[in-house]
Amino acid sequence: MVVINKSLKINSSSNFQIIDITDDILNILRVINSDGEKHISNGTLSVFSKHSTSAIVVNENERGLLQDFERTLNNLIPDKNNYGHDRIDNNASSHLKSFLLGSSETIPIIDGELDLGTWQSIFFIELDGPRTNGTIDLVFIGE
Amino acid sequence: MVVINKSLKINSSSNFQIIDITDDILNILRVINSDGEKHISNGTLSVFSKHSTSAIVVNENERGLLQDFERTLNNLIPDKNNYGHDRIDNNASSHLKSFLLGSSETIPIIDGELDLGTWQSIFFIELDGPRTNGTIDLVFIGE
Amino acid sequence: MVVINKSLKINSSSNFQIIDITDDILNILRVINSDGEKHISNGTLSVFSKHSTSAIVVNENERGLLQDFERTLNNLIPDKNNYGHDRIDNNASSHLKSFLLGSSETIPIIDGELDLGTWQSIFFIELDGPRTNGTIDLVFIGE
Repeated sequence: MVVINKSLKINSSSNFQIIDITDDILNILRVINSDGEKHISNGTLSVFSKHSTSAIVVNENERGLLQDFERTLNNLIPDKNNYGHDRIDNNASSHLKSFLLGSSETIPIIDGELDLGTWQSIFFIELDGPRTNGTIDLVFIGE
Repeated sequence: MVVINKSLKINSSSNFQIIDITDDILNILRVINSDGEKHISNGTLSVFSKHSTSAIVVNENERGLLQDFERTLNNLIPDKNNYGHDRIDNNASSHLKSFLLGSSETIPIIDGELDLGTWQSIFFIELDGPRTNGTIDLVFIGE
Repeated sequence: MVVINKSLKINSSSNFQIIDITDDILNILRVINSDGEKHISNGTLSVFSKHSTSAIVVNENERGLLQDFERTLNNLIPDKNNYGHDRIDNNASSHLKSFLLGSSETIPIIDGELDLGTWQSIFFIELDGPRTNGTIDLVFIGE
């Protein structure tokens, strides 16, 4: 059994942005497994965003759906609503969306690959961008 | 420390369905722990649905509550709302509910048993059924 | 690789209460890592609430924001709405909020410390208090 910590750096270009990080993660896993010293055939990947105005979700990467998702979040969490936090730092609705969506997901690794379904991608949801050098932690645990 | 990958196959019979998978998981854990070769006394179970129109949640299995939950989801996410994804594949609201609920939960294992609370069950939430041979991945990690 | 199971006991004093458990967890991790016998430099912490009327979330501990969060949950999930579960046990809205928020989060451990972002705290969200001796499971896995 081994544990391998990696991280992804994210630059977002707008206030709300859904960034598909699946390929970046697959590349990191392939480098780990081609190295030979530490190898993960079976185990888990934990994906964690270090930012409380962002979220990690798993769903389908279809352009129309991602727009539906943004609109749905805006309907559920009004942008301005006399929020107390807006008097401190004018981004309450970004935090509230993050609260609802969650900061981590754990994905199985089987036979050296992420065991995602056919229509699943891993997304970083930017809720308060643009942001430079955002950090997503990846922890691979397995054998 | 060991890692053990298992999966559950799910058949749902209606569009929306809450399926209690606790007993299936308990049975798998008991088979693992009666085998003797690989044994997990303490660790974690990660439960992951491979479908982006489904979710994994932990809550109480009470019939009235499960109906309340379905109604609440329908109130939060309208079935039809001029969704872009409905022009591609007529199931946007199923994806949007999955986005909100999440695809994985991680549950502790203590003394060879899932350490669920008295009123907790693990549910697969079908959001776009009926479905044949849906897959839920289970990763047991521990010692 | 080692696994270490710990738990936190929670007493809440009101029906809705957001309790920051970050410092309690940091203290437990420091005791683990000063012990010397079992040490975790790199790995994950899984935080799991054993109560289906509570939730675990990661976000910023700012007083105004926590009040915004309570109000937002109340807007999304009406306290009373002819819920079926209220005829059994008068706390349906507490369960429904828990459904939405989730029961677990997984946080990376790097160099012997939780790798939280600058503005991130780990919260237990009490949704049906006051409660005595609530239990949060902590599973540390790593090497």
